[in-house]
Amino acid sequence: MSSTTTPSVPHVEVVDVDTVTDLALGATLLGTGGGGDPRVGALMAKAAIAEHGPVTLIGPDAVPEDGVVVPVAMIGAPTVILERIPGGHELDLAMAGFEQLQDRAVVATMPIEAGGINSTIPLVLAARRGLPLVDADGMGRAFPEVQMVTLGAGGATAWPLVLADESRNVVSIASAADNASAENLARAAVVAMGGSAVVAHYAVDAATVREWAVPRSVSLAVAIGRALREARSGGGDPLAALGEVCGARRLFTGKVVDVDRATRAGFVRGRLTLEGLDEDAGSRAEVDFQNENLVVRAEGEVLAAVPDLISLVEAESGQPLTTEGMRFGLRAHVLGIPSSPVWWRPQALRLVEPRAFGYDLDPVRLEDPR
Amino acid sequence: MSSTTTPSVPHVEVVDVDTVTDLALGATLLGTGGGGDPRVGALMAKAAIAEHGPVTLIGPDAVPEDGVVVPVAMIGAPTVILERIPGGHELDLAMAGFEQLQDRAVVATMPIEAGGINSTIPLVLAARRGLPLVDADGMGRAFPEVQMVTLGAGGATAWPLVLADESRNVVSIASAADNASAENLARAAVVAMGGSAVVAHYAVDAATVREWAVPRSVSLAVAIGRALREARSGGGDPLAALGEVCGARRLFTGKVVDVDRATRAGFVRGRLTLEGLDEDAGSRAEVDFQNENLVVRAEGEVLAAVPDLISLVEAESGQPLTTEGMRFGLRAHVLGIPSSPVWWRPQALRLVEPRAFGYDLDPVRLEDPR
Repeated sequence: MSSTTTPSVPHVEVVDVDTVTDLALGATLLGTGGGGDPRVGALMAKAAIAEHGPVTLIGPDAVPEDGVVVPVAMIGAPTVILERIPGGHELDLAMAGFEQLQDRAVVATMPIEAGGINSTIPLVLAARRGLPLVDADGMGRAFPEVQMVTLGAGGATAWPLVLADESRNVVSIASAADNASAENLARAAVVAMGGSAVVAHYAVDAATVREWAVPRSVSLAVAIGRALREARSGGGDPLAALGEVCGARRLFTGKVVDVDRATRAGFVRGRLTLEGLDEDAGSRAEVDFQNENLVVRAEGEVLAAVPDLISLVEAESGQPLTTEGMRFGLRAHVLGIPSSPVWWRPQALRLVEPRAFGYDLDPVRLEDPR
Repeated sequence: MSSTTTPSVPHVEVVDVDTVTDLALGATLLGTGGGGDPRVGALMAKAAIAEHGPVTLIGPDAVPEDGVVVPVAMIGAPTVILERIPGGHELDLAMAGFEQLQDRAVVATMPIEAGGINSTIPLVLAARRGLPLVDADGMGRAFPEVQMVTLGAGGATAWPLVLADESRNVVSIASAADNASAENLARAAVVAMGGSAVVAHYAVDAATVREWAVPRSVSLAVAIGRALREARSGGGDPLAALGEVCGARRLFTGKVVDVDRATRAGFVRGRLTLEGLDEDAGSRAEVDFQNENLVVRAEGEVLAAVPDLISLVEAESGQPLTTEGMRFGLRAHVLGIPSSPVWWRPQALRLVEPRAFGYDLDPVRLEDPR
């Protein structure tokens, strides 16, 4: 992942039912443990594409100048989201609410994050409305809070922000003191809505998409999914394939021995402990998470931290693991993946560095081998 | 208070600075302990009237047919509201947000409740916008929750509901499953906004005002305030004056010996204990409150309960007391005042009877002597 196109990632031009399968698999890795299991979102996207036809994917350069791109997503704790997968109905309500609050034409939709279920939710809207999907997103991964978006670092406001749920509750933020306030307000509303909702927010123009979105991240997720699938069916090495396509490297290999996890205040928070295997035998690693994995430490040393990606894959198959899927005894590799360079711009880094999550820890950066 | 005009209450036609003083005093009694100290809101209303001129008060029959009446108020715990009295700015923001969500003309404003600070907040909007104020309200008293409004019993929805605060946060509910859901959503947002906000909600047409609002309650509050003021300056008996103007009767007289009060989840909740004096010597009374006084019991017997009004006045002066003003040693009369008959319609009673506040208690009704 770099701010220009990654050469090894072929551009996808149309998202059809088969592409969704690879996209969902790749998005699980980019979800870094959070974002929910994208296979569930993939079912929704496939149903919408089967009904309305494939979705056209356009590069940031092809975004029309005369309107806005509106990212849509699910917001809430992944544990709750998985119980409350939305129908197209909530997306329609959220978009109707959004259009009531502003009068710019909606020319495209985009994932707000490249990981988890939110990589596929915008496909449902795109298919229903015949909108193109922009091959980019606002994180290049998944992050848990509304203000943790590259677009915001570039000056975009999260508002107008519209939340909708299956009971026809529609809550909007027409303005806010700042994006962190929008997060507080939205989170309170989401908790009152039962823990999850559909959200439309961060409407941005073409120039902002080009300068501040993480480009080609939909194509990247598809490429990751395809690489994993091909390695699996061809007997190849999944880790080598992931290293090739997204710069992933193994940080630790171990067995899950403890999962401390609680859903509160709209998030899943906790810590995962692994007991080392193979070359890591004799040491332990701990992965902290707030929906997404934040920091991984082994024997007191930080192996990787936000904004870089920390993803776990099942040791044998390379299958990406979500926090909800963790259980005692799982054998896993902990992978580090360099984040988009957009996050290392100073006005962006302050939103997602370890201190933004309460750690007294300077940023550490995985070296990008590409 | 009756569903037709109370004969003993003269109609007020214009609210000027002097009228506001009486209105605020009367509203303290109708606030039944909650709603905040209206003297603070009175200062705002006086400033707005001094700048923009007096406000025209129109009866329900004079509400124009071709638009909506939009009640505005403060929402939140009175303890917090008193620290965060809004400027006209927040009212402008809330109304702008409201007008974004619907396209009917705003022809008047109205208090949502007749008690507390919210009796004077609509005067600020009315003065700033040159709107008439409807001589009616949605409770005939104060109640703590969004769904506890006569207009809702008549089928009106609380939404579109718009909240605004001094930090330019604007949160809207464009639709909700029902008015109780609107309460949950709004309360969560208010807590996230720091505990209080300005709210515009329950937009209703002329027919709904005529059939479901509590009529002439602004005039009633002014009449109560005037009666108290005149009794005090003329050496008259405040209790007799209150009995005359609003049917108030003494239920208990005692000294405050305990105030158990906590602000949580957006409300002030607690219990007040009085030790009997004079003819009540030897017995104790307890007044439960959730912002407003809900139930008063003496020696296990219910003396009065919602929806009837339970108000405390200082024993010597007849000065109405708010929950925030309670302190050990205060000598007070506990008064019962019959609520508007609108509340005794079955579809209304279920919103505010004791069970709606969690009491395992059938409704009890104070007899109206008028």
